[in-house]
Amino acid sequence: MPGDGRLARGDATRRLVLRRAVDVASVDGLDGLSLGRLATELELSKSGVFALFGSKEELQLATIEAALGIFETYVVKPSRAVEPGLPRLRAICENWLDYSEHRIFPGGCFFFNVGAEFDARPGRVHDAVAAASGSFAAFIRETAVEAVASGHVDADPEVLAFELHALGRAANADAVLHGVADFYILARRVIRARLEAVARA
Amino acid sequence: MPGDGRLARGDATRRLVLRRAVDVASVDGLDGLSLGRLATELELSKSGVFALFGSKEELQLATIEAALGIFETYVVKPSRAVEPGLPRLRAICENWLDYSEHRIFPGGCFFFNVGAEFDARPGRVHDAVAAASGSFAAFIRETAVEAVASGHVDADPEVLAFELHALGRAANADAVLHGVADFYILARRVIRARLEAVARA
Repeated sequence: MPGDGRLARGDATRRLVLRRAVDVASVDGLDGLSLGRLATELELSKSGVFALFGSKEELQLATIEAALGIFETYVVKPSRAVEPGLPRLRAICENWLDYSEHRIFPGGCFFFNVGAEFDARPGRVHDAVAAASGSFAAFIRETAVEAVASGHVDADPEVLAFELHALGRAANADAVLHGVADFYILARRVIRARLEAVARA
Repeated sequence: MPGDGRLARGDATRRLVLRRAVDVASVDGLDGLSLGRLATELELSKSGVFALFGSKEELQLATIEAALGIFETYVVKPSRAVEPGLPRLRAICENWLDYSEHRIFPGGCFFFNVGAEFDARPGRVHDAVAAASGSFAAFIRETAVEAVASGHVDADPEVLAFELHALGRAANADAVLHGVADFYILARRVIRARLEAVARA
């Protein structure tokens, strides 16, 4: 049926636009997105791209959702595949630092950038960014709780999760801003020392 | 002389525009600045404001410089007034958390926000942001080095400085994004514990 063909083409175009949008937004911010510019860069019809997303805010929300899918593929899923407790806590930190260092998004961590961009701007985009960021923080916290419950770790899990998340984000911030990969080495060293210090023998 | 009057009025207008610009940029980013919008909001003549700054990039650079002055007033100068070593290290952390929590800039830490905004965008604005951010990181590091040299602290000063700076920035990020001040309480608790753990008796 011709209708199915149009739908399939629409899905493919949507994926193409969003794959480019997440990269643009990681460098220029979600406010740096423009349906017109994306259409031009991808050599697509502007009216077709506008029809798919409707508004800049809808594009921003779809971009956050697409970035979350990529984040889950690189950070969350491979960490969930690791044994719960301390091994998983280590895996989260290492997968996150790799994801930032390997520039899965050209601007470094997508959610670090758009979190800072929308932190003080109420609205649907803020709420989507806060939900994504809060859900990753909760994943680290739950893993720290499991690590304590299983007897792997002797620490306040909330404090430990906050420290680990803080160290990773600081490495991302400094490495991208100053173009110096040494911050990842420093963060890995501090995180390992921190986990060794709280690990039960 | 009439020339002096015009100069003085120019300086006063410049200060007025920049005081508003730092607040706008802390929420909407340096890309959210517009000479036209600032002129309208402040009920100034657009041509006068354009003549004072010349271009959006010049306005962004002047805004960074103005924000740095405010940051120094609230964080750097009161910390430099404290005894070097561990007392100053403590003061830097507390002054920085207070500066973020009291929303000296409505969007939280100005440099956290514009650092994330311009981290991956080469140019003069990036360089000014990186210089300001790097200079504060160096101040924490130098203070940590002094704290070790004076025998107050037993730790790797580079690691300690990175940890303290990371914890502060994480509190700012989470508190602003989620609108929850508890992150400052958590960060203060973790920072105090960290400093107690490395302090020599």
